[in-house]
Amino acid sequence: MATQVHPPRGMRDFLPVDKRARERVLRVIRGAYQDHGFEEIETPVVEDAERLHAGLGGDNEKLAFAVMRRGLTVDDLREAQAPLELADLGLRFDLTVPLARFIATHRASLPPVFRAIQIAPVWRAERPQRGRYRQFMQCDIDIAGEPGIAAELELLAATGDALTRLGIPDAFIRINDRRILLAALDHAGVAAELHEPALITVDKLDKIGPEGVTAELAERGVDGARLLAVVDAMREGEVPGGIDPAVLEPVRDLLGANVGIRLEFDPTLVRGMGYYTGPIFEIAHPDLPFSIGGGGRYDGMIGRFLGQELPAVGISLGFERLVDLVELPVEPGAETVALLVDKAVEPAAALAIKRDLVAAGQAVRMQRRTKNVTGLLEQLAASGATHFAFVRPGDTAESLEVKPIG
Amino acid sequence: MATQVHPPRGMRDFLPVDKRARERVLRVIRGAYQDHGFEEIETPVVEDAERLHAGLGGDNEKLAFAVMRRGLTVDDLREAQAPLELADLGLRFDLTVPLARFIATHRASLPPVFRAIQIAPVWRAERPQRGRYRQFMQCDIDIAGEPGIAAELELLAATGDALTRLGIPDAFIRINDRRILLAALDHAGVAAELHEPALITVDKLDKIGPEGVTAELAERGVDGARLLAVVDAMREGEVPGGIDPAVLEPVRDLLGANVGIRLEFDPTLVRGMGYYTGPIFEIAHPDLPFSIGGGGRYDGMIGRFLGQELPAVGISLGFERLVDLVELPVEPGAETVALLVDKAVEPAAALAIKRDLVAAGQAVRMQRRTKNVTGLLEQLAASGATHFAFVRPGDTAESLEVKPIG
Repeated sequence: MATQVHPPRGMRDFLPVDKRARERVLRVIRGAYQDHGFEEIETPVVEDAERLHAGLGGDNEKLAFAVMRRGLTVDDLREAQAPLELADLGLRFDLTVPLARFIATHRASLPPVFRAIQIAPVWRAERPQRGRYRQFMQCDIDIAGEPGIAAELELLAATGDALTRLGIPDAFIRINDRRILLAALDHAGVAAELHEPALITVDKLDKIGPEGVTAELAERGVDGARLLAVVDAMREGEVPGGIDPAVLEPVRDLLGANVGIRLEFDPTLVRGMGYYTGPIFEIAHPDLPFSIGGGGRYDGMIGRFLGQELPAVGISLGFERLVDLVELPVEPGAETVALLVDKAVEPAAALAIKRDLVAAGQAVRMQRRTKNVTGLLEQLAASGATHFAFVRPGDTAESLEVKPIG
Repeated sequence: MATQVHPPRGMRDFLPVDKRARERVLRVIRGAYQDHGFEEIETPVVEDAERLHAGLGGDNEKLAFAVMRRGLTVDDLREAQAPLELADLGLRFDLTVPLARFIATHRASLPPVFRAIQIAPVWRAERPQRGRYRQFMQCDIDIAGEPGIAAELELLAATGDALTRLGIPDAFIRINDRRILLAALDHAGVAAELHEPALITVDKLDKIGPEGVTAELAERGVDGARLLAVVDAMREGEVPGGIDPAVLEPVRDLLGANVGIRLEFDPTLVRGMGYYTGPIFEIAHPDLPFSIGGGGRYDGMIGRFLGQELPAVGISLGFERLVDLVELPVEPGAETVALLVDKAVEPAAALAIKRDLVAAGQAVRMQRRTKNVTGLLEQLAASGATHFAFVRPGDTAESLEVKPIG
């Protein structure tokens, strides 16, 4: 025996039964997004290292798999001052940086308001652990070119429709606005240079509670109690004096529209990425302790590659978590006939029967007949066969007795 | 302006119109293969470097993009004796090595005869040139576990059906058998250690003609005239004395069956990969100077990973060349309505109309109404919209006048 052979660490193969289930969920998501007017694009799995490491990926940049330059010599290794000097490409760690690069490349060929679907794998060199993989699928929709909340509304409605079609109507979306957080920080007297660290602490509210957050903020010299009081007032729709009431308007407008999925205002929602500039979202489910997606407005990002500002907002579904949650009813798929072929039948004769059945619109799986027909039929049914027929010498497609399995 | 921003060298983005066309061709191929009883699997895009460089990929191994180990230090660079020591993973250069690894990993969960579909990108660091890309799609079907030509027949029939459904019935398949080539080499007195170099020369017959081949073989000390005479006799079905006539049987049996696509015996067909052990195939088209796919039997390869022999045979479609060749008729797709929304309409009101139309089964694209409606409609039609309606303040889904474009 050879030693055990595995896929690379933290990555997975998909057997036919898993592949079918995954493709099915992707088809439902893609169909919903297309119905909502989004169009699918594709980019290469790698991007130039300078773009991937342009500071737009936050902590994920550190998790990028680096692709080595071709034609390196031992001298190159000796002279390099850092390992990454030897890499010119990297596997994408998200679909947002590639989208920004794509739009910068193709702006002239795209409509003024572009609605993109990206359904594709991304890679992160994270420590492998249960439910976290180093290659995983993301399903992103983004709208570029629309500065107003019309874009957020379309994204939320498309997301809500996809989740409804997937049979998980209990999912809901937490919303907030980066500008609300910044106004609260200002109002609580937090200096601008402490905004980002303070937000990182506020983001831990779920895990360490208000006391934990207040304590950690105190270490940073921030008056956490005051900050949380401001935030709590805004949760109730009250805007403390000194804060421009207009800061709550976009969230109010979103909450006031019917997007087909429940929205819940959570002024403590932070979302990790530093590039968000407006409304932010996190998709939640009452049965799950983690989010199943998220997104937000990132008006400054595409401009970094394009050289001119272009407003954009996107939502990403956490496909790997969704696919475990979803149980779609069995599709009324094509009839699949298993041909149990007698050993005495010539291969060319068996093939002629198979080709006739396929031409008649059936899916056909050939199978050498074994002694234990019951066990064989169970196996075949498990792998999707719905009917079977014995094939004996002299048989034709017309002479077969095709029977349902079970 | 920012400097021009491109995808990585030799790689491509796909705009919506290209992505749609590609996905459509892939759907047709996948549908044909599924009807013929093949099942789709998926493996990660990278494999462990030791597997990728196990000598099974021929020249392609040299073209693999190498992924750097994580956590390397400058000391690691100083101590490495070769660049590849710094890489532990590589992007796959074909789908055959990953399939062999997949079967070795999952043998116990797979049926005794396993029919696999793999439709996925591969990467090769080739010099970029017209029509050659560093990331490209392959569509492979393989049958593992069947030693007889029943497997070849099923593969050829599935391939023929896929090509017919794609509307290119003129495609045909050149076939040969590695054992015929080896018998001819033996009969022509070519020493075993010269077999592979001699085959590399014979493979150039199309390019340099019989004289060129004979001259190049002479340089290697091989009697090329004698070798080509043996091969020509076999082309006519004659087996020179001293060669076991059984060597022609598998090819004769394949030629004698009706697989739904024309087969042409070409005893000079070599195929580059050293791992082939039986029948080999090359898909050709009368209008094209290059092949659009190929494959063959590789009985020894899976055993290298599995630790026990498992016969296997596969055919790979050259998707990038196919997709340029194919012109599928327009699909009677979903009606797509473009909503031309007046500036005075509230975003939430526009969204309500969109949601009602989607719920009624239509695909909907929102669009701010511009002055030049004719130009706008042309753009929308080009991107797939079939109908349009103006949306004015006070409108509902019921009040809209939806008209066909054009």
